[in-house]
Amino acid sequence: MPQFPSSVVIREVGLRDGLQSIQSILATQRKMDWIRDAYAAGQREIEVGSFVPARLLPQLADTAELVAYAKTLPGLMVSVLVPNLKGAERAIDAEADLLLVPLSASHAHSVANLRKTPDEVIAEVARIRAARDAAGSRTLIEGGIGTAFGCTLQGRVEPAEVLRCMQALLDAGADRVSIADTVGYAGPAAVRELFEQARKLAGEKFWCGHFHDTRGLALANVYAALETGVARFDATLAGIGGCPHAPGASGNASSEDLAFMLSSMNIPTGIDIPRLLTLRAKVAGWLAGETLHGTLWLAGLPKTFINSSTAATAA
Amino acid sequence: MPQFPSSVVIREVGLRDGLQSIQSILATQRKMDWIRDAYAAGQREIEVGSFVPARLLPQLADTAELVAYAKTLPGLMVSVLVPNLKGAERAIDAEADLLLVPLSASHAHSVANLRKTPDEVIAEVARIRAARDAAGSRTLIEGGIGTAFGCTLQGRVEPAEVLRCMQALLDAGADRVSIADTVGYAGPAAVRELFEQARKLAGEKFWCGHFHDTRGLALANVYAALETGVARFDATLAGIGGCPHAPGASGNASSEDLAFMLSSMNIPTGIDIPRLLTLRAKVAGWLAGETLHGTLWLAGLPKTFINSSTAATAA
Repeated sequence: MPQFPSSVVIREVGLRDGLQSIQSILATQRKMDWIRDAYAAGQREIEVGSFVPARLLPQLADTAELVAYAKTLPGLMVSVLVPNLKGAERAIDAEADLLLVPLSASHAHSVANLRKTPDEVIAEVARIRAARDAAGSRTLIEGGIGTAFGCTLQGRVEPAEVLRCMQALLDAGADRVSIADTVGYAGPAAVRELFEQARKLAGEKFWCGHFHDTRGLALANVYAALETGVARFDATLAGIGGCPHAPGASGNASSEDLAFMLSSMNIPTGIDIPRLLTLRAKVAGWLAGETLHGTLWLAGLPKTFINSSTAATAA
Repeated sequence: MPQFPSSVVIREVGLRDGLQSIQSILATQRKMDWIRDAYAAGQREIEVGSFVPARLLPQLADTAELVAYAKTLPGLMVSVLVPNLKGAERAIDAEADLLLVPLSASHAHSVANLRKTPDEVIAEVARIRAARDAAGSRTLIEGGIGTAFGCTLQGRVEPAEVLRCMQALLDAGADRVSIADTVGYAGPAAVRELFEQARKLAGEKFWCGHFHDTRGLALANVYAALETGVARFDATLAGIGGCPHAPGASGNASSEDLAFMLSSMNIPTGIDIPRLLTLRAKVAGWLAGETLHGTLWLAGLPKTFINSSTAATAA
């Protein structure tokens, strides 16, 4: 049997990757309720929003407020996404625990979506690192490499280019690096191969895997990544979010299904799944009319399920 | 990297496990069209029905006709499910290539659903073997061990009991043995562990894995099984079928999503995925109003997809 990690963190990114992809705008109070309940269910890392101009993503305009609220919850690691130095400065001011800078390994996708080449993003990360250090801030910097398994514009993305970007991000001062299958092109064999190489390159700085379920492979891909020892995965409650290129297609890995898979493997996540399912029902009510995903909420937990979470006492 | 099988067979069980679980009764001619198109798309093993009394499963009353039709397609391995000796005699008369006898490793589930204990099913397999040999028939006998990862009635099912049943089936004369997660309780770590042991016990006679997607883990489970060298999986087009205990929940592993996963891993299946998606659209039209599953049909194939199937020339 492979060596699986002794525990796994599911980083909840529904409030960012999920909410930015759907029409509904959730009120700030409801987002706070979501964060509070996710925390009570045992989640200890949450990406609460994105420091982008409000005119681009009005859904996420309240990110500073959410960071401030989330930081009142003891032991919660509060992340935000930032597209550039300006966003990073806001994250540093807000004292976010971690800021994630997205980089697209696909040159075509990078220019089309970020309006920068990968190397320009890497140069921006170096400026962010300098700003962080100058501010005496403890905010961690994560470089998240997207379209790592291909993209809808240029098609194939070479693993060597992903690894080159990863090394360059580390050289530029990123504290953490991650890999994302932004458009749901990855299969488990490719994941295993790339993640093994990434672990060799970045060691413990290789931080997180982010899989979309666009073609149903998110959990198989997580499983393949687990076999390489990676112990942190992004996911969204009810699998919200997803692929703008495939309307109606499945979104992110669903947090509750992923928690169930890990529970079935006896890998602790700290998550109380019944509580997370209760939160899912609440969020589903708030997002009425949106396409939600995941399967566990409908089938229910198996009779053999043992709730090993200590969240009830920890929260 | 693990050693994956050099090729994989997706056995289509939609005409049996799928159609028996849903309300619609498909006309015999449409079932024949389905078999013809699946064959044209490269599928070479199809379970066409079940020899059970028509009053119990009117959906499958035309199984003998379907076997006769399917056997006109060169190189197609035609399977049927049989619950007992009487059904097996019909399968042998019809010259099916393989008959599958289901056994439930859960004693409670076995008594409730098959009205026999596991040991009584094993004794029936011995009688089926004797009848097959007496008839000079070449129909293969497969013992399919269901509820192998737990069941909705008794909860936990011990792997040791699954392996005991497997050995007993082989001793009783089964040519092949298989494992099924009938109710969607399996996770990939348990799959890997049990499949490794089953391979050790039965070698090449360990024939097939059958996973339901009730809790979203079917493809992760297939991936874990692939790592043990198992090279044949049941699946249903559009994931039809599923779990009577969880109405609306996901059904079987979907044939087209599974074919895509294997294609992403460069494991040949002989299946022409675009053709299979065309057939899916046709069957979805026939089954209007039924809940269908799968993700690939909605998202479409990635830009990086290469159709390596030789089905177009083989068909």
